[in-house]
Amino acid sequence: MNELQCGTSPIVGFRFSLHPMTDRFVEVIKGAMKETDTSAVWMHTDDVSTVIRGKQAHVFNVAKAITLHAAKTGVHVALNGTFSVGCPGDSAGDVYLDMPDELLNQDETKQYVSSQFALYPMNNPDYMSVIYREVDRAKERGVFNESMHYASGIHGDIHDVFDFYEEAFENARSDAHRHLVMTVSMSINSPSHEGSVKR
Amino acid sequence: MNELQCGTSPIVGFRFSLHPMTDRFVEVIKGAMKETDTSAVWMHTDDVSTVIRGKQAHVFNVAKAITLHAAKTGVHVALNGTFSVGCPGDSAGDVYLDMPDELLNQDETKQYVSSQFALYPMNNPDYMSVIYREVDRAKERGVFNESMHYASGIHGDIHDVFDFYEEAFENARSDAHRHLVMTVSMSINSPSHEGSVKR
Repeated sequence: MNELQCGTSPIVGFRFSLHPMTDRFVEVIKGAMKETDTSAVWMHTDDVSTVIRGKQAHVFNVAKAITLHAAKTGVHVALNGTFSVGCPGDSAGDVYLDMPDELLNQDETKQYVSSQFALYPMNNPDYMSVIYREVDRAKERGVFNESMHYASGIHGDIHDVFDFYEEAFENARSDAHRHLVMTVSMSINSPSHEGSVKR
Repeated sequence: MNELQCGTSPIVGFRFSLHPMTDRFVEVIKGAMKETDTSAVWMHTDDVSTVIRGKQAHVFNVAKAITLHAAKTGVHVALNGTFSVGCPGDSAGDVYLDMPDELLNQDETKQYVSSQFALYPMNNPDYMSVIYREVDRAKERGVFNESMHYASGIHGDIHDVFDFYEEAFENARSDAHRHLVMTVSMSINSPSHEGSVKR
């Protein structure tokens, strides 16, 4: 891998960890993975995280589905991950770019989530304006929660939140800047959310 | 906040979440925070994460101490966070730059950790070479684990791993590129680590 190879593939990736705050964490993680149709993405799990790669729509669909299945157990769950495009490193999984567009996970169960995200458009002197534009978009979409150091708070129903994340990622990567990174940290069923659920 | 204000403060920040995979997660988090001397950093916790800000050495010292205290409970713990410098947004916490240099947390208990990190030097056409240089440094330091999509695996004793992270961050930010971001995802006491502990 070298700098010249960056940005040569349109494959999108998401490296994430799912953290159920329960003694039964193995059962919750394995259950969420099993209940999600991951056949449209390349997937690999190691001792710290899982990476999925494929078409953007499938990557976001699978990420949301795994999170929602874990959330439906009712336990306090956190999702931490990084979406990336434009610096493939190698081509493992590129075959998944030929998958049909049909989304394979369609569970519409409502679920309040509170999250924080940051956009990192690489090698772009105008990167701050990309960030401000997508934060403004969050306000327009009604999912903006609050400003903070190093991130922006995004909350609401899981479907609205993931729709915003995919839209922000799509728009930020279309800026002719090839290498884009977006970090997301999400908290669900937290005791800290009492009083803010469904607002 | 606008682009021109980026990079005006040398304050370092770390926005993180600690995830103990146990029904007693509140007790483990609160215990780890209580046992750590955080007086040298500005700190704020919301419903998703905690941010600490101050001198680089104190930020890394506090991050390690909180993680180590949680690890010593023996439960499976994950740490996910983003170190940042150069885009302060505002000046909250800048007073902490006047703190004495003496590190306030000195627990040297050994603890195996497995982790993954990514460096994002912003607005730098040569950012890939910064990344490669720090990955090479991990190999020299004996903490490199494996290459992977979107990150590099770093493991070993918690003190060696945090020493490497602080050194990599220090070197990458000294490249005359003002805005630097480093994500770290760490797993401790994981059932997935059986067989690799203390190697």
